[in-house]
Amino acid sequence: MKDFHPSGTLLDFEKGCAIDFSLKNGLSETVETGKRYLSQMKSMFADDAAYEAELKNGDKLVYEFHGLPVPETAGDLMYGCSIVYPGKVGSEYHMTKGHFHTILETAEVYYCIRGQGYMLLENPEGDWRAIGMEPGKAVYVPKRYAHRSINVGQDEPLITFFVFRADAGHDYGTIETKGYRKLLVEQNGEPAVIDNPKWK
Amino acid sequence: MKDFHPSGTLLDFEKGCAIDFSLKNGLSETVETGKRYLSQMKSMFADDAAYEAELKNGDKLVYEFHGLPVPETAGDLMYGCSIVYPGKVGSEYHMTKGHFHTILETAEVYYCIRGQGYMLLENPEGDWRAIGMEPGKAVYVPKRYAHRSINVGQDEPLITFFVFRADAGHDYGTIETKGYRKLLVEQNGEPAVIDNPKWK
Repeated sequence: MKDFHPSGTLLDFEKGCAIDFSLKNGLSETVETGKRYLSQMKSMFADDAAYEAELKNGDKLVYEFHGLPVPETAGDLMYGCSIVYPGKVGSEYHMTKGHFHTILETAEVYYCIRGQGYMLLENPEGDWRAIGMEPGKAVYVPKRYAHRSINVGQDEPLITFFVFRADAGHDYGTIETKGYRKLLVEQNGEPAVIDNPKWK
Repeated sequence: MKDFHPSGTLLDFEKGCAIDFSLKNGLSETVETGKRYLSQMKSMFADDAAYEAELKNGDKLVYEFHGLPVPETAGDLMYGCSIVYPGKVGSEYHMTKGHFHTILETAEVYYCIRGQGYMLLENPEGDWRAIGMEPGKAVYVPKRYAHRSINVGQDEPLITFFVFRADAGHDYGTIETKGYRKLLVEQNGEPAVIDNPKWK
């Protein structure tokens, strides 16, 4: 598809641009992803022994996601794909670290384009939800809720297209320190929610 | 996919929810669309005679889109699918009316999931672009730019998943009164950009 541009560069968030995000694998030929390997997720899974054993088998890629050079203003939007690869650590499914927005009062939208999973939500007061995701489901992450994507599929990546206010920022520290109140684990071959024994 | 909700209703933008938007046709089983028929687009196409002739063949659906009951705050996000059906009025392709945001300094993201088309952008100072859309392309509509989706395909709908700040608002009046400076028309079987003879 030929563009009609009077001027412009590839990543022009001032005058408009298009970026490719594959509907099949979530990756872009234009923009690199940030990658999270198992070694970067120490103590985030409940079962530390299973984590160490898994790590000895190799430092697998757990998830990746795009970060674009969008101006970080309240009128701009950050977007891209998040790709969580299938697998488990003990009985716990592969997941993203999860985070609050630094500006807590900002929402986020995730549109699932491939895979099977959950969005785990939790606010500072302890209200929580685990919302099912499958292709064609758009999950609304409300203001004030930490959010984590979890792949419960057997062999497919969980791919979501996300959009949030570009000035929202990421607060990873709260989850890294306190953890989530709930976990998504496999029980009798099915996803189940349990209390997190490590929650502080 | 079974949800794990401690409470909640289907359209709960305060505590989180999931809404279906089909990756095949853009429609939702949960949420109705607003519909724009040809009769509602009088004088928006350049060729008034072709428009009147077309209308005599029946009042066809030109496009539809979702409007959700998201709280209209700066921390919330509006989202849904836009579906532009294939066709032309004279040599001009089917398109949305196009609009500015009432809060001009707010951007929008469109992720194309099906079809072939263009996003036509124009700011009040006259800078413009027509950016090609095809499945997997995410178009960034910058702050201050009017935006219109145009389907240049032969027989497929143009389907995009859109997200913007929920307080942004729609200013349709400026485009309805002044028009766009540029039009997308078919010339020798190819999309081409021409000056709008009706532009004021």
